[in-house]
Amino acid sequence: MLHPDRFFSAEPSQRDIARALYALVKDLPIVSPHGHTDPAWFARNEAFPDAASLFIKPDHYIFRMLYSQGIEMERLGIARRDGVPVETDNRKIWKLFADHWHLFRGTPSSIWFSHALETVFGVTETFSSKNADAIFDTINSELATPEFRPRALFERFNIEVIATTESPIDALNHHQALATDPWQTAGLKTGERKGLPRVVTAYRPDPVVDPEFEGFAQNLFRLGELTGEDTQHYHGYIRALETRRAFFKKLGATSTDHGHPNAETYDLTDIEAAALYDRALEGELDDDECDLFRGHMLVEMARMSCEDGLVMQLHPGSYRNHNEKVFDSFGRDKGADIPRRTDYVHSLKPLLNRFGNSKSFSMIVFTLDETSYTRELAPLAGHYPALKLGPAWWFHDSIEGMLRFRHSTTETAGFYNTVGFNDDTRAFLSIPARHDLARRIDCRYLAQLVAERRLSDDDAAEVAVDLAYRLAKAAYKL
Amino acid sequence: MLHPDRFFSAEPSQRDIARALYALVKDLPIVSPHGHTDPAWFARNEAFPDAASLFIKPDHYIFRMLYSQGIEMERLGIARRDGVPVETDNRKIWKLFADHWHLFRGTPSSIWFSHALETVFGVTETFSSKNADAIFDTINSELATPEFRPRALFERFNIEVIATTESPIDALNHHQALATDPWQTAGLKTGERKGLPRVVTAYRPDPVVDPEFEGFAQNLFRLGELTGEDTQHYHGYIRALETRRAFFKKLGATSTDHGHPNAETYDLTDIEAAALYDRALEGELDDDECDLFRGHMLVEMARMSCEDGLVMQLHPGSYRNHNEKVFDSFGRDKGADIPRRTDYVHSLKPLLNRFGNSKSFSMIVFTLDETSYTRELAPLAGHYPALKLGPAWWFHDSIEGMLRFRHSTTETAGFYNTVGFNDDTRAFLSIPARHDLARRIDCRYLAQLVAERRLSDDDAAEVAVDLAYRLAKAAYKL
Amino acid sequence: MLHPDRFFSAEPSQRDIARALYALVKDLPIVSPHGHTDPAWFARNEAFPDAASLFIKPDHYIFRMLYSQGIEMERLGIARRDGVPVETDNRKIWKLFADHWHLFRGTPSSIWFSHALETVFGVTETFSSKNADAIFDTINSELATPEFRPRALFERFNIEVIATTESPIDALNHHQALATDPWQTAGLKTGERKGLPRVVTAYRPDPVVDPEFEGFAQNLFRLGELTGEDTQHYHGYIRALETRRAFFKKLGATSTDHGHPNAETYDLTDIEAAALYDRALEGELDDDECDLFRGHMLVEMARMSCEDGLVMQLHPGSYRNHNEKVFDSFGRDKGADIPRRTDYVHSLKPLLNRFGNSKSFSMIVFTLDETSYTRELAPLAGHYPALKLGPAWWFHDSIEGMLRFRHSTTETAGFYNTVGFNDDTRAFLSIPARHDLARRIDCRYLAQLVAERRLSDDDAAEVAVDLAYRLAKAAYKL
Repeated sequence: MLHPDRFFSAEPSQRDIARALYALVKDLPIVSPHGHTDPAWFARNEAFPDAASLFIKPDHYIFRMLYSQGIEMERLGIARRDGVPVETDNRKIWKLFADHWHLFRGTPSSIWFSHALETVFGVTETFSSKNADAIFDTINSELATPEFRPRALFERFNIEVIATTESPIDALNHHQALATDPWQTAGLKTGERKGLPRVVTAYRPDPVVDPEFEGFAQNLFRLGELTGEDTQHYHGYIRALETRRAFFKKLGATSTDHGHPNAETYDLTDIEAAALYDRALEGELDDDECDLFRGHMLVEMARMSCEDGLVMQLHPGSYRNHNEKVFDSFGRDKGADIPRRTDYVHSLKPLLNRFGNSKSFSMIVFTLDETSYTRELAPLAGHYPALKLGPAWWFHDSIEGMLRFRHSTTETAGFYNTVGFNDDTRAFLSIPARHDLARRIDCRYLAQLVAERRLSDDDAAEVAVDLAYRLAKAAYKL
Repeated sequence: MLHPDRFFSAEPSQRDIARALYALVKDLPIVSPHGHTDPAWFARNEAFPDAASLFIKPDHYIFRMLYSQGIEMERLGIARRDGVPVETDNRKIWKLFADHWHLFRGTPSSIWFSHALETVFGVTETFSSKNADAIFDTINSELATPEFRPRALFERFNIEVIATTESPIDALNHHQALATDPWQTAGLKTGERKGLPRVVTAYRPDPVVDPEFEGFAQNLFRLGELTGEDTQHYHGYIRALETRRAFFKKLGATSTDHGHPNAETYDLTDIEAAALYDRALEGELDDDECDLFRGHMLVEMARMSCEDGLVMQLHPGSYRNHNEKVFDSFGRDKGADIPRRTDYVHSLKPLLNRFGNSKSFSMIVFTLDETSYTRELAPLAGHYPALKLGPAWWFHDSIEGMLRFRHSTTETAGFYNTVGFNDDTRAFLSIPARHDLARRIDCRYLAQLVAERRLSDDDAAEVAVDLAYRLAKAAYKL
Repeated sequence: MLHPDRFFSAEPSQRDIARALYALVKDLPIVSPHGHTDPAWFARNEAFPDAASLFIKPDHYIFRMLYSQGIEMERLGIARRDGVPVETDNRKIWKLFADHWHLFRGTPSSIWFSHALETVFGVTETFSSKNADAIFDTINSELATPEFRPRALFERFNIEVIATTESPIDALNHHQALATDPWQTAGLKTGERKGLPRVVTAYRPDPVVDPEFEGFAQNLFRLGELTGEDTQHYHGYIRALETRRAFFKKLGATSTDHGHPNAETYDLTDIEAAALYDRALEGELDDDECDLFRGHMLVEMARMSCEDGLVMQLHPGSYRNHNEKVFDSFGRDKGADIPRRTDYVHSLKPLLNRFGNSKSFSMIVFTLDETSYTRELAPLAGHYPALKLGPAWWFHDSIEGMLRFRHSTTETAGFYNTVGFNDDTRAFLSIPARHDLARRIDCRYLAQLVAERRLSDDDAAEVAVDLAYRLAKAAYKL
């Protein structure tokens, strides 16, 4: 099923070059500096449940597409907030997915799923309504074996290091447990990190810096409890955030992550910020003031990054929970987050004015608005020492999306203002598929440059390894 | 002249796959669910006039390009509002067009025109100043024969069903005449619609829902006359719109169409809407209030669609009549409508909040702002059950435009949230050319996916037929 | 090193067609209608200094990329405003550049530099840290010879005519000197301009029409001195601008150039404009009023163009001096100008309403916001007689940028609403490289059209010459 030349250009000269480049990178260890796997998997190393619970229920790429074609989420076993019962027969859910498999033609979900079926479970038939039952059984029986426990898969996937993402009010119990677990620091077979941790955390403060986040005030109370700081006042709040950053750093974090609705940054005075904070605690900020507070906190986070060296990631531009009915019934992260137009050139200026030229600061910016690649982001990254471009993200973590990213950014920002690949996934089994796809597409792009005499063979070989491995380690200090 | 492999990739492996896929779809009947042909042609079946009247004077793609290079529209026989005489020698107009034929190099107009010349009139020479006279004579003498009457061409073009577009204040005389004409329901040779109507209407209420439309108040008066409702008041107005929808539906309409300057929707109360309506009748609304009223009426139209099942089409984002001098001298639709930046994520939210999850509602959205494909439209269509993506429209109904559409939307929305092709044309003779081009480009795109192992041969064959035929019938309930 | 088929498609059928088309244009004279070379070079014909002063210090494409990777501009010999000493050892600067040559992989800078090394200096080795010293010496010794003086290179580069860009308050001493120099009008070996000037100026009034330009008030004082007009009042100011246009025209200018932050135009009354002008002189305008004044002056400039026939160029959409620290330390043009979102459809309307249909007016519009190609600029240029599209500019003067330009604009605006290539450079030695690249990419694009049967061989051959030579001469009246 999986053709060795898949995703390369069909044009023979480019395909041959791509194949040669890919041979250099396909077995490199996976560095996964940004993602959403559950640290409990690695800490507890319990067996994964069945196929539907693994592949469908947690994957909003899958169920959003099914929902768009009229399949109710209840029938897919997605839990409702109001406790109305939903489908619990996982075999039935799996079959429903198989019956609508044609909807995924031409999508990355189809690529990732097929890759996992074949490389993880050895399934080489085309998935269909007919074989759905048999494949469900195959997967489930394999998942019950020791070879399919999280740590075994981690090693089989040749992961050198993976970052999870946690909130400052997460106690990090699993990471604490891992810290004293020999598996965590046992020398890996490959790579250069022998003896270093395999699983690290990343600091994502959205729940405590975004006044519109559900439970903002309670989150701040909890932040106070965890740190012993007085988070009822701005200065205690700032100290609490710093305290948690230090704690996260101790548990391996090398980066922070910020998921804002836009890229706005504001450099307020402490007095202005404290006044906003007081009103944010009371839930009194209007939309513009929320932007102001979030934007100010990004600049504060940049300041802290200058001090503690954590690399700062900004993922702006998503309109969260666009579908009110779905949000009311099912909650967050149900495939209804929609990208929106995002400005960087004006928005990032306050932050860049303060820290953009600093040697002790490193910021990685992502976008869901591809129009900003050539117009704003590549020009900014091709100038500011502190700024780098994150890879094609979310909907753009796809063949076309990754090609557009390289075609749009390389000529202005080069390769060395980019940071390698992020899988950014909750779907552990898709990690090898995603990295493999990214490596193939980068090799395809490089092969085109070589075939068109825009890059030498030697340079392409070096860049291929940089994109697959070295840049991520360097950019994330891993 | 017309090469059998035209518009496929020049790369042999992809070309061969495209050729095989195209063989599956090239002879499928044409389903034309959205367009602007004149129902009088089919009702009366009179001979078309001469070549210039057929190809140049009504085609703003043609005369806009000539005008952009300094050729006065008067010389092209375009009638002026003020009655100043314009060129009436159609042979001279045709010759002027031929003398500037090089301006169309690389444009879809050149493709459509060449296709019609060869396949409809058997002209296989390259069009030029030298043979313009002879070709003019050939076309004119053929147009005078029975084989070139509208119904004969309709059958020769293998059109299964075509939708025209009419205003609620159109009496639909031609559609009424067709309703009792045996030709209209005579079983077609091909397709699955034996005995069903060949020509249907579509409901386009812009003249009565857009307060800025020329003659808005008079249009409402006429709407009242046609329906017997009191359109001087909001509730009578709403009832009148519903009455006309029912009448259109009786004459075959399965869809409505809405050509708004933007995609704004507003869910006003009846009291708010009625107050706006009163002032709209007096011509008192400012720009923002016009947006508000139009946006509210879109939500009202969606509500009616939920009730009567008409599929709702939204074509937003054109700045109409941008050139004031041309508008003053020649009126609407003279090639001076210019696309503009269009937001969907915020604008459509009120409408989608109410009806986006409804099983009884189907909305097809088009765009002239291609930046919204990956950022807004594919994500929205890949989530909301009621929302589908219309094909590449107007300036984007072109090789590059259609390729960009597929490359930008498929990975996020899949194929099955799209609706096949619309020719959207006033130029009857270009219909086979336009559908042929769309089929070739979709096959080209699918061939790339197959060649790059992103789609199986079998799946591609099925999708090719879906894109060329099945999706349009399903999406438009034809 | 320089492969004869470089930058063509790797697909053999397209490559072969591209090669044949390129053979038709590669030796055509260079017409350079817009650029920033120093007229002193041609007037004085003095030897260029060393390699670092030629290739690194004046080229913000080069030092912005080095700066983005943490190399201080002081180490590159970029002069500071405050007189703090910077590196003066040009060999050391050259070596630092060589040590970071990998940063330029995949960028146009790499293409231009390699082309100059090989075709101008005969260097065929790959540039590296190892041979940097030897190449530095080679270049420097060649630069000292008569064959590398500006005029000798001008002739060797087969430049037919070049336009420099000057401010109205520039006395044009070098152009005046050239006017009486026999070299300036000595018949050229090639082309059709025998006996006509080789070096012309272009009128760039930004320093005297943009109230935010450094030294605006002093610039106006100087404008008054040069013209004898009373520039303390609006009417004298307008007369002074007209007087200088006439002077520029006498010294060969055929065009004006306008580098505005946006494309806004406003058609104010004289009274409104005069009131703004008075306050602009006092530095009292806020941001919106600055836009208003600049926008009004664009319309005024268009009016003057109607009268004196100078072709008007508009280069909007750059956020100048985005990096405040860099601006404070090093001044303008240090690689920190960042493109931003730019509207044309609304912004240009006032100007187009007045002059868009005029036969005596010609306006060439550029963009840094590629989203406007298909949405706004190609539609506008495909309609308005006075409007034409400038080529892919600045960051988009690249392989991908030029391909996107053609792919996005041709289908709607055709080829004949575009104006050929602009090198727009300060880097004299890159001119042949830039024109060669543009010719190759246009031939590549045309080859694709031919291979896909979208354009005939004969038409492609004619268009290739139009794009490489004829269109620029016609559009700029050269």
